[in-house]
Amino acid sequence: MRHILIIGIGAGNPEHMTVQAINALNRADVLFIPTKGEKKTELAELRRGICARYVTRAGSRTVEFAVPVRRTEGRSYVESVDDWHAGIAAAYEALLESELAEGQTGAFLVWGDPMLYDSTIRIVERVKTRGRVTFGYDVIPGITSLQALCASHRIPLNLVGKPVEITTGRRLAESFPHRNETAVVMLDGEQAFRKIEDPDAEIYWGAYLGTPDEIVIAGRLAEVKEQILEARAAARERMGWIMDIYLLRKGADFEE
Amino acid sequence: MRHILIIGIGAGNPEHMTVQAINALNRADVLFIPTKGEKKTELAELRRGICARYVTRAGSRTVEFAVPVRRTEGRSYVESVDDWHAGIAAAYEALLESELAEGQTGAFLVWGDPMLYDSTIRIVERVKTRGRVTFGYDVIPGITSLQALCASHRIPLNLVGKPVEITTGRRLAESFPHRNETAVVMLDGEQAFRKIEDPDAEIYWGAYLGTPDEIVIAGRLAEVKEQILEARAAARERMGWIMDIYLLRKGADFEE
Ligand SMILES: C[S@@+](CC[C@H](N)C(=O)[O-])C[C@H]1O[C@@H](n2cnc3c(N)ncnc32)[C@H](O)[C@@H]1O
Ligand SMILES: C[S@@+](CC[C@H](N)C(=O)[O-])C[C@H]1O[C@@H](n2cnc3c(N)ncnc32)[C@H](O)[C@@H]1O
Repeated sequence: MRHILIIGIGAGNPEHMTVQAINALNRADVLFIPTKGEKKTELAELRRGICARYVTRAGSRTVEFAVPVRRTEGRSYVESVDDWHAGIAAAYEALLESELAEGQTGAFLVWGDPMLYDSTIRIVERVKTRGRVTFGYDVIPGITSLQALCASHRIPLNLVGKPVEITTGRRLAESFPHRNETAVVMLDGEQAFRKIEDPDAEIYWGAYLGTPDEIVIAGRLAEVKEQILEARAAARERMGWIMDIYLLRKGADFEE
Repeated sequence: MRHILIIGIGAGNPEHMTVQAINALNRADVLFIPTKGEKKTELAELRRGICARYVTRAGSRTVEFAVPVRRTEGRSYVESVDDWHAGIAAAYEALLESELAEGQTGAFLVWGDPMLYDSTIRIVERVKTRGRVTFGYDVIPGITSLQALCASHRIPLNLVGKPVEITTGRRLAESFPHRNETAVVMLDGEQAFRKIEDPDAEIYWGAYLGTPDEIVIAGRLAEVKEQILEARAAARERMGWIMDIYLLRKGADFEE
């Protein structure tokens, strides 16, 4: 039987790699890297750099492949993601059939941790359910961008004993945190924080975390909002792409 | 100036250690390990094992210390935690003064990631604010129990594009997830899941994750509730202590 390893590689710093992930890389006969056609060449380079630095097993090979692009036209959000996943599943199936022999192990290198806003696990499950290629698989966790954010700002994620919501830009309006609660926003293409007018809100923002281009800004939202919007726009212009994440809260530890 | 490194060591598997954390361990002159008086001797052993395995720098030393116990009698929850933190801050201050010379670096090894339901960062901040010892500090992320849970169950944390709430047993009643949302419960001494009667709820539970004693159970809550309660009680009896975490949700990807 074939075997697949879904390996979290951390969120930008090659030293986020865990010993478990390094060992998993070295169990693989084939390393699948989603790079072809990627605009963010820095990310493709980072993945290649991780293989170059940590793969010590002789004879494993790297297969770069293009991830199908999501089509949104004439589709609801759900249809568009569902179609997209079906397309990626077909691509994975073809890769496994053509690149991995029976009894071999293949590894997918996943940004951050595969459990967080990533679909590799569910797509591998789809391929398994289709039943044309039989295989087993394991998941290896990796440092997420959320952890990189907290580490760079040197802050706890939660206030003492209080809950945290992880959400997306699209949903922030519905889920802006209550007093003493925390919200972390990922996948925000529209800077949803700009619409928040709460004078008590504080923000901890970070872009390109863990990479040499890391930028972090923190403060009372009302006071740093413009600074973040400007820094973000300038960085995006300079780099051609951006990845950013932020934490919002109001209140303090030990408030009731 | 003294320097402090707050290092996440992962949540049970010594191979959760990142390269960044290993390098940080090897920058420290003194490694502070909270073990003395610990009931959970397996956890103390795991910390010692991590030092034995990964510290290669000659001449660093390990200082084990006892963490003050939280007193709850005659205090509200907030008062009791606040007093407790003040006590730990005093203990840290004494340790830094007596064990770390000017210009030296000390490391605190923190379970999982220091950002998640852990107070090392806020206590180090308290010591800094008190101002008797001056130092700088950095935080190094580590794999959390939440990630170990998802990896062992091979599940994404979130449903596609949907939010996730991280909460405690005490608060689950208020924050049981809406359809298509996910809740992760930590620090639950009372098995709050037993009170949930929702027939659609599914649970992914794990104890001693990442360790040789790991137990995982998943299924429709109504069907596996008793099995989890029994496995938990038996393991706790056998080991003398337990650490467990679980994820609850209802609904599925691509539901609107
Ligand atoms: C598709 S999700 C993948 C998340 C990833 N699995 C993780 O564990 O962080 C991509 C989002 O993660 C966040 N992100 C990932 N890496 C980041 C980084 N280095 N700096 C800032 N944000 C990052 C951004 O919010 C981005 O929109
Ligand atoms: C004080 S919190 C510390 C969390 C830690 N900082 C982390 O990143 O996972 C302790 C709680 O974490 C969870 N936990 C930590 N390690 C665990 C493990 N190996 N297995 C199951 N639960 C764990 C349990 O819910 C426990 O009550």
